[in-house]
Amino acid sequence: MSEALGVGLIGLGTIGTGVAKVLASNAEVIAQRLGFPLRLVRVADLDLERDRGVDLSGVRFDADAEGLVDDLGVHLVVELIGGYGPARQLMLRALERGKPVVTANKALLALHGAEIFAAARSGGTDVAFEAAVGGGIPILRALREGLAANRIQSVHGIINGTTNYVLTQMEEGGEPFEVVLKRAQELGYAEADPTFDVDGIDAAHKITLLAAMAFGAELTFKEVPTEGIGNIQPLDLEAAREFGYRVKLLGITKLRTEADGTERVEVRVHPTMIPAASLLAKVDGAMNAVEVSGDAVGPTLYYGAGAGELPTASAVVGDLIELARDVRSGRAGRVPPLSYLPEELVPKPLVPLGELHARCYLCFTALDRPRVLSHIGGILGEHEISIESVIQKGRGHSGESVPVVMLTHPAGESAVRLALEEIDRLPDVTAPTRLIRIEEDL
Amino acid sequence: MSEALGVGLIGLGTIGTGVAKVLASNAEVIAQRLGFPLRLVRVADLDLERDRGVDLSGVRFDADAEGLVDDLGVHLVVELIGGYGPARQLMLRALERGKPVVTANKALLALHGAEIFAAARSGGTDVAFEAAVGGGIPILRALREGLAANRIQSVHGIINGTTNYVLTQMEEGGEPFEVVLKRAQELGYAEADPTFDVDGIDAAHKITLLAAMAFGAELTFKEVPTEGIGNIQPLDLEAAREFGYRVKLLGITKLRTEADGTERVEVRVHPTMIPAASLLAKVDGAMNAVEVSGDAVGPTLYYGAGAGELPTASAVVGDLIELARDVRSGRAGRVPPLSYLPEELVPKPLVPLGELHARCYLCFTALDRPRVLSHIGGILGEHEISIESVIQKGRGHSGESVPVVMLTHPAGESAVRLALEEIDRLPDVTAPTRLIRIEEDL
Repeated sequence: MSEALGVGLIGLGTIGTGVAKVLASNAEVIAQRLGFPLRLVRVADLDLERDRGVDLSGVRFDADAEGLVDDLGVHLVVELIGGYGPARQLMLRALERGKPVVTANKALLALHGAEIFAAARSGGTDVAFEAAVGGGIPILRALREGLAANRIQSVHGIINGTTNYVLTQMEEGGEPFEVVLKRAQELGYAEADPTFDVDGIDAAHKITLLAAMAFGAELTFKEVPTEGIGNIQPLDLEAAREFGYRVKLLGITKLRTEADGTERVEVRVHPTMIPAASLLAKVDGAMNAVEVSGDAVGPTLYYGAGAGELPTASAVVGDLIELARDVRSGRAGRVPPLSYLPEELVPKPLVPLGELHARCYLCFTALDRPRVLSHIGGILGEHEISIESVIQKGRGHSGESVPVVMLTHPAGESAVRLALEEIDRLPDVTAPTRLIRIEEDL
Repeated sequence: MSEALGVGLIGLGTIGTGVAKVLASNAEVIAQRLGFPLRLVRVADLDLERDRGVDLSGVRFDADAEGLVDDLGVHLVVELIGGYGPARQLMLRALERGKPVVTANKALLALHGAEIFAAARSGGTDVAFEAAVGGGIPILRALREGLAANRIQSVHGIINGTTNYVLTQMEEGGEPFEVVLKRAQELGYAEADPTFDVDGIDAAHKITLLAAMAFGAELTFKEVPTEGIGNIQPLDLEAAREFGYRVKLLGITKLRTEADGTERVEVRVHPTMIPAASLLAKVDGAMNAVEVSGDAVGPTLYYGAGAGELPTASAVVGDLIELARDVRSGRAGRVPPLSYLPEELVPKPLVPLGELHARCYLCFTALDRPRVLSHIGGILGEHEISIESVIQKGRGHSGESVPVVMLTHPAGESAVRLALEEIDRLPDVTAPTRLIRIEEDL
């Protein structure tokens, strides 16, 4: 068996600890697959004290991340500190030195991917990021290589475990968002600052990467319409069930080819009602699942743990194994990071959310007066939004607000927005109307 | 853009036609990913007349498969004639000449894989076979590369579309196997000779490949216990529903590590009752799905079309794209075909089916006499098989046979077999007892 390659790990948090554990516990299997060992030789983290339950004997462990990158014994660099500033600097430094980088940093890639991929190219090396989307699910590999014969048509799925956990718990217990979120934080399913997750930003980072990879488009994170789950109420989840749906926070991207052949891309993140009988609707708790449709393969689905120490480490170490083969054989750049060659990546304009045409779930909160419903109906009609069915939940006493739940026939998003603005100004409407888009056949 | 690589296609049946179509219709996307075109230059098939609805202008098309393999313009060979004799000869011929081969021929690989992989190695080239398992689902790539950081613990799933289609139809219509199979043949979901599918042989070929790849074991097709769906009756599917299960034909393989560290492998194919709430239970019609569990990643699932012209072509062309990169860069053997290096592949003994310990569904057909049930219960008790619940379906007139359905607590397969032999010899038992194993937590 030939000589080991050295791995340097920057960031010994949850995932970093998982990576150290997997490299140690599965060293034998990895060597049997590669023909040589992969050895963790150096770790950098600011916190040198905390016990992470992992044995680092024989591994140099200090706070010197730049020294780690420059260390001649480090052949492959793993960046797991997250964030933008230092992570970006360290990755660029490694790539300049021709050292391949493995990262799980979707936020950085969604914003600065173009710069980082270019640095890898000019350094004659690679950056791999399977762990950035879908945790341990090898979804990027499927999209970049397994389905490379296809024109990809759409990618959509549950790509944030925290929000899926919260929605599942809200549904099971009928408890409000705030209560469930608090418990999720206590149990470690949600961060102390849960904004990135519950506002859909994390999902938007991920769908940005998936859209670029699926369609050869440029990364467009800042333009992605993003809506979180903070306004969803247990009533919405219950009504969804009654109508035969379930509510999931989805990242969605589709290619739209116009009559003249120009291509635009839909990219969006929002709570979505999907048929209860679909496979995606069965994905509960913190699990992730992504559906990819290609013109040859049709629909395919990939399911697994979207986060967590060991599942995410599985993806990081899988990338290390792939890059180690290329380091050993002196061959970099085997597959372009976004699946298309850089010169083929073209800016593809996003379809504005206003152009969306979908059935909608609407939940109005109104004083229970007969004329309110007819007012609402009138305004919807003026905007050419036709009602498919209505449920009035309970019947309040005079002067009390009651929810009215409605499904519409397919309607233009702009028209719906305008109608809701008008409706929410009605004196008898006592709270902002909630809108959840329905995707019947993604 | 650099020069094209030439593809030679042997076998212009359903999948071959799909490959020709995908190479033509997605030529642009493929070139944008590779940096050079992939061009179908030659096709060999015995039937030169039949119209397959694909444009072969500019492609040399004749019956000379050996000439195709030897053609200097053919850089990559696709073998899609199936079967053993000529397919094997042609693959070995191509590999000897250093030309990589893509195939969907699971039967050949499950039996002669070792010889073919060795030929690829000594020819300094590769053989790829993503299309051999799960049609268009990139399941082999996930197992070989995406999950390479894991010790794989189990692989199981619905890997034969025909039988899943038949079971789904039997369940929906309550019709017997023979009726549904005949209709499936008329609709093209089953072959004129359906033996390979309905008897589980096709699934056994596939689980043989998956087991070898998952555990670094040798290929063991001839020893795989295999049971088809020919004896399943609509009553069994209905009873399964009542107990909260569904019946699926599963290929199952698991690693068993004994106390002394020796490893054995469970490999089997049989109808299986799985919890109705599981994702696998929702996989209907001709779709396939495979669940893979690894020690780091936990459970993951891969779903898609398991057969068909274009889905299978998606996998074949995906392999062509991968191998084309390696041909262009002069680098072969990047990933070992069975995921472990050949010298690491060890014979791992199979666990005999008799050692299986599982809950069982049993359906007895007996004359409705009080003493029959007590006889059956007595014999089960003698073999230490304890009954969890019993349903007696209907109540026949005196002298008429009625089905008695039973779930057992976990019991040893050998004991169950012995008990059923005894029971089936009872004079009041009028038909062979049907056994379906239950897998609660695969």
